[in-house]
Amino acid sequence: MAMSKFEYVKQFERDDSCLPNCWIVVRIDGRSFSKFSAAHQFIKPNDAAALELMNRAAITVMEDFREIVLAFGQSDEYSFVFRKDTQLFKRRASKLMSNVNSLFTSSYVFHWPRIMGNKELRYPPSFDARVVLYPTDKNLRDYLSWRQADVHVNNLYNTCFWNLVLKRQMTSAQAGEKLKGTLSSHKNELLFQEFGINYNDEPASFRKDDIIGDRFWKENHEVIGLKSLATYQRLTATNNSTSNTVPTPIHYINNISPSSKGNQLNSIRDDSHTEGNRVLNREIMQCNPTNSEQLHNK
Amino acid sequence: MAMSKFEYVKQFERDDSCLPNCWIVVRIDGRSFSKFSAAHQFIKPNDAAALELMNRAAITVMEDFREIVLAFGQSDEYSFVFRKDTQLFKRRASKLMSNVNSLFTSSYVFHWPRIMGNKELRYPPSFDARVVLYPTDKNLRDYLSWRQADVHVNNLYNTCFWNLVLKRQMTSAQAGEKLKGTLSSHKNELLFQEFGINYNDEPASFRKDDIIGDRFWKENHEVIGLKSLATYQRLTATNNSTSNTVPTPIHYINNISPSSKGNQLNSIRDDSHTEGNRVLNREIMQCNPTNSEQLHNK
Amino acid sequence: MAMSKFEYVKQFERDDSCLPNCWIVVRIDGRSFSKFSAAHQFIKPNDAAALELMNRAAITVMEDFREIVLAFGQSDEYSFVFRKDTQLFKRRASKLMSNVNSLFTSSYVFHWPRIMGNKELRYPPSFDARVVLYPTDKNLRDYLSWRQADVHVNNLYNTCFWNLVLKRQMTSAQAGEKLKGTLSSHKNELLFQEFGINYNDEPASFRKDDIIGDRFWKENHEVIGLKSLATYQRLTATNNSTSNTVPTPIHYINNISPSSKGNQLNSIRDDSHTEGNRVLNREIMQCNPTNSEQLHNK
Amino acid sequence: MAMSKFEYVKQFERDDSCLPNCWIVVRIDGRSFSKFSAAHQFIKPNDAAALELMNRAAITVMEDFREIVLAFGQSDEYSFVFRKDTQLFKRRASKLMSNVNSLFTSSYVFHWPRIMGNKELRYPPSFDARVVLYPTDKNLRDYLSWRQADVHVNNLYNTCFWNLVLKRQMTSAQAGEKLKGTLSSHKNELLFQEFGINYNDEPASFRKDDIIGDRFWKENHEVIGLKSLATYQRLTATNNSTSNTVPTPIHYINNISPSSKGNQLNSIRDDSHTEGNRVLNREIMQCNPTNSEQLHNK
Repeated sequence: MAMSKFEYVKQFERDDSCLPNCWIVVRIDGRSFSKFSAAHQFIKPNDAAALELMNRAAITVMEDFREIVLAFGQSDEYSFVFRKDTQLFKRRASKLMSNVNSLFTSSYVFHWPRIMGNKELRYPPSFDARVVLYPTDKNLRDYLSWRQADVHVNNLYNTCFWNLVLKRQMTSAQAGEKLKGTLSSHKNELLFQEFGINYNDEPASFRKDDIIGDRFWKENHEVIGLKSLATYQRLTATNNSTSNTVPTPIHYINNISPSSKGNQLNSIRDDSHTEGNRVLNREIMQCNPTNSEQLHNK
Repeated sequence: MAMSKFEYVKQFERDDSCLPNCWIVVRIDGRSFSKFSAAHQFIKPNDAAALELMNRAAITVMEDFREIVLAFGQSDEYSFVFRKDTQLFKRRASKLMSNVNSLFTSSYVFHWPRIMGNKELRYPPSFDARVVLYPTDKNLRDYLSWRQADVHVNNLYNTCFWNLVLKRQMTSAQAGEKLKGTLSSHKNELLFQEFGINYNDEPASFRKDDIIGDRFWKENHEVIGLKSLATYQRLTATNNSTSNTVPTPIHYINNISPSSKGNQLNSIRDDSHTEGNRVLNREIMQCNPTNSEQLHNK
Repeated sequence: MAMSKFEYVKQFERDDSCLPNCWIVVRIDGRSFSKFSAAHQFIKPNDAAALELMNRAAITVMEDFREIVLAFGQSDEYSFVFRKDTQLFKRRASKLMSNVNSLFTSSYVFHWPRIMGNKELRYPPSFDARVVLYPTDKNLRDYLSWRQADVHVNNLYNTCFWNLVLKRQMTSAQAGEKLKGTLSSHKNELLFQEFGINYNDEPASFRKDDIIGDRFWKENHEVIGLKSLATYQRLTATNNSTSNTVPTPIHYINNISPSSKGNQLNSIRDDSHTEGNRVLNREIMQCNPTNSEQLHNK
Repeated sequence: MAMSKFEYVKQFERDDSCLPNCWIVVRIDGRSFSKFSAAHQFIKPNDAAALELMNRAAITVMEDFREIVLAFGQSDEYSFVFRKDTQLFKRRASKLMSNVNSLFTSSYVFHWPRIMGNKELRYPPSFDARVVLYPTDKNLRDYLSWRQADVHVNNLYNTCFWNLVLKRQMTSAQAGEKLKGTLSSHKNELLFQEFGINYNDEPASFRKDDIIGDRFWKENHEVIGLKSLATYQRLTATNNSTSNTVPTPIHYINNISPSSKGNQLNSIRDDSHTEGNRVLNREIMQCNPTNSEQLHNK
C-alpha cells in the first residue's frame, strides 16, 4: 500500500539501451592509478605481476560474459567488445558497463594476494567505465588501433622516462621536461645514445599482438565474426614496421562458434580444452602509471 | 602520426551529463546475490556480518565522494544521493555511476577478511549500477520512501519465509507457495500464530531509521540541504505505525556544512571528530537474498 | 547585466547530436490527416493533386538541404535520408528534424493554391517528425523496404475499401468489417471477383519505383553513395513479383557527384538542367487517409 | 509477410520521453529570418503586421495544444511552456517539438494573406525547434527572464541601429561599427543626443509584459499553476526600472482550471467566452531581424 504510493518514482529511470547493430565497447580505466602504483611500489616502467593481475581480472570478466568477443588491455585500462547483436541486459548501457566494471574490480582485489605475493593491498582500488558504440567493423578496428597506438606512444615515453629517473637519477619533473615535445624518433635516439637500448630489439613475444595490421583479423575472422573487412585500407609499410615494435598489448578472444550464435549468455561449456585457444597471447603488458593521465587526456 | 589517424573514434563517445538542478541518485544492486549468499552460508533472514560489510563499503564510498549527501542501504542494494548542484565529473552519468560502483565493490572484497572472519570468499561478487534523476525534494523523498517501504515488504516476507524453512522444515518451494498472495496482515498473523513472534516488538534500534516520516528530515535539514519540504504530505497514521516497525534500513549522511558549499570535492578535512555525526545510525540491516529478485522485479 | 544573471539556463539544453557514421533518417507524418483529407474532400483511394502537393513539398526540402541523398514518400508521410557523413547542424537531431519538418509544412501550405486549384485550404495542416539512425547500408535498405511494403499493404487495402464504399454503397464500418483479417490473396480475389479489377494490371508507371529489389540500388549506386551492398540478400521471387505491383511510392534523389563530397551544404548550383535527373520518377502516389492510423500503428 | 521481414527496423527508434516532473519548453526560431524580413521589406525596427502574424501563429498552437500553459514571443522566436505533468504524446520530445513547430509554421503561412495584406509571400519560411527541460519553477522563471532580457538588449540595439541607418543614412556596416561594444547606457545616450528619443518614454502598452518581476506571477499564479515562488529573489531596483522599459514581449496563457487537470488534450470546450482571459496582453512585439543571429548566437 505504502509501496504503491511511492512507486511512481520508477518512471524517472531512463531507457539507455544501445542502438541495435552497433559494436558495444566497454572501456574501464583505473582511477588515480599513478598514486596507486606508487603506493604499491610497482616496478617501472612495466610491472609484470601487476599486469598479470589486470589480465586475470579481464579473463574473469570474459569467462562470465560470453557475449564479449574481444578484450584488449594496456596499462590500467581494458576495453571489452560485445558482439554487435548481443541482447545481454537488453543492451542497456548502464547494465553492461556497471556489471563488467564491477566484476573486473572485484576480481582485481580478489586475485591480488595470489598474484602479488607478499605485497599487501593497502586500500581498495577502483576503475571508471564508459560505453561507446561503433557502427561498422572499420570503426571498431580503428578504435582498437587507436588503443594500440596509445600503447606504443605511452610505452616509448615510459621507457625513456624511467631510464632517465632510474639510471640518471633525474626527478620526475626533470625527466618530464627533457621529454617534453620530443617526437618518437627523438625518443628512439635518446634510448640508443644514452642507454644503448635499441627499442626495435624488444623481445619477439612483445610483437605478437598487432591488432592494427590485417593479419590478426584474417587469422581470427571466424572467432570474432567480423565479416566484411574488404574495404579496410592497409596501413603503410612505415606504420606496419612501427606497430611491429609495439610491446605488450594484451588481448583475449571468446571462442564463439557459429552454432552458438544466438545462444543464451552464460551457457555452460567445457572450457578446459579451449582455454589455449581463447587466450591467444598472454604476455607481459606495459604499465605506465606516472604519465597515463597526461597522455590519455582522461 | 598513427595516433591521429585513429583518433576520430573518440567522437563516438556521447555526452551523458545529468540535467542540472536535479538530485542524482546512484543505486547499486548485487548481481545474483541469492546464489552468492547461499554459497557463503549467510544467516537467514538477516546476516549481521554481511550487512556490516555492505555498510563498510558504503562508508568507504562516502568518505571518498564528499558530494554524496545521503546513502541508504538494504539487503544487497545501496542508494547514494549526490547533492543537486554537484559538478563532480561534470555530472557525467557514466563517471558518477561507475566510480561509485567500482569503489563499493572493491571495498566489499577488500574488507571481507576483516569483517567476515574465517569465512573464505569463494569467488568475486559484483554489483550493477544505475543513475536516476529527481527534479524536486519531494521526488527524492518519495524515492527514499519507496526503498524503505521495500525494506519492510521484503523483511516481513523473509522473516516468515525463513521461519517456515528453518522451524517448520519446509522447502523453499513450499514456503513460497504458502506465502503467495498473502497481505501484510496475513504475514503478521502467521508470525504470531505459528511462531509467537510479534513483528511490532522488534528492537527499538530497528525503528530509528524512518526516512519516510517528517521527523528525520526536520532533524537533518541543515545537513543535507533539503530546503523546502513544506508541501510534503504527512503519511497517514496507519502508514506511520507500519513504517515504525520497519527494521534495518541503514543510512549515512555526509556532514556538509553550509560554508563548504561549492568547495572542491575531496577537500581534505579532519574527519576523525565528525565520524560520529556523519554516520548517524549504524544498525543491522536485513538481508533477503532468496526473494530479492522476485520482489524487486529487477 | 540582467542577461548574465539568467544565462545559466542555457546549460539545461542537452547535446542530441547523432552518432557518427550512421544514416540519419527524418520521417515526417501528417497529423490527423484522416480528418484533414475528409475536410478537403480528397479523392479516394488516391488523390493525384494532394500527392503532387506532398511531392512538391519534398522537392522544396531537397533543394534546400543538399545533404539529403534520398527521399521516399507515401500517403501523408515522407522519409528523408541524410548522407552518413553529413555535418549539417553538427548532426544535432533536433535541428535536422525540425528544419526539414518546418520547411516541408511551410511548402505544403505555400504551394496549396497553385496545385489544389479552387479548393480552399480550410485550416493549417501539420506534420510530426522523428529521427532514426541506421548503422549499415543494409539497415537503411530494409528501412526503405519496410516503408515500401507498407505502401503495398495500405494501397491494396484502400483499393478494396473504397471500391466497397463507392461502388457497393457500404458504410466505412461495413467495409472495414468485410476486410478485417483478410490476407493479400483474399483482397486480390475480392477485387477481381466483385469489381473485375486485376490488381497486377496496374499501369507500368506504378512499378518503376521498386526500392526493395537490387536493380534500383545498382542503377543509382553512384548517386547515393551506398557502396557495399554485396551482402544484401535478394528477395524471393514471390516477394519480387508482389513488389512489382506496388503502386505509387515516390522517391527523389539528390544528384551528388563524387567530387562534391565533403562540400559545404547549400552550395549554389545551377539546378535547372539537372532537375530531370534528380527527380527520377514522379508518379502519382496513393493516399490512404482513412485507415492510415490503424495500419501504421502510429 | 514482406512487411514482417523488415519490421525489425522499428527497433532503431529511441525513446526520447522527457524526465517527469520538469517543465517542458519548446522554443522555435526563424531560420534565416534576416534574409526573409529583407526579402519581404519588413518595417524597421518593428513591423507590427509581421509580429501580429507571429502572434496569430502562436495562438493557433495554444488553441490546439491545451497543455501549453504559457507562450512568450519576441522577434522571430517563440517559447511554449507545457505544464509539468503533461502526458501529451507520452512526453516524447520529438513529438512535442515537431507538432508545435509544424503547426506554428503552417499557421504562419496560412494567415499571411489576411494579416500581411497585399504583400505577397515570396517563398516558404521555416523555423527550427528545440526542447529544454527545467526542473523547478525558479529555473523556468529564469528562462523566461532570460528571453525577456534578450528582448530588451535586442530592441535597444535595433532602435539605435535603424535610426542610424534610416535617419543618418549609414550603411549596415557603419551602424554596426558605431554600436560595437557599447553599453546600454551608451545606447540610451545616443538615442537621446542624436535623435531626441527618450527610450524610457516608450508607450505604456509596451511595459505591460514584465515577466521578470514578481507582479506578473502573483497575478497569474492560479492560471499557470506555479505554486511555490517564495524563494524567488526580487530583482534589484535598477533591474526593475530597466525591465519596465522593455517593450513588446508577448505572452499568452492557457486558462486551465484546476478541474480540467488530467483531462485529455484537445477536449472540446466553448472558448468563445474565455478568449479575453486567455490572451491577456496582445501588444505589438518588436522585430529585430537584422542582428538576431549575431545577438542570439544561434
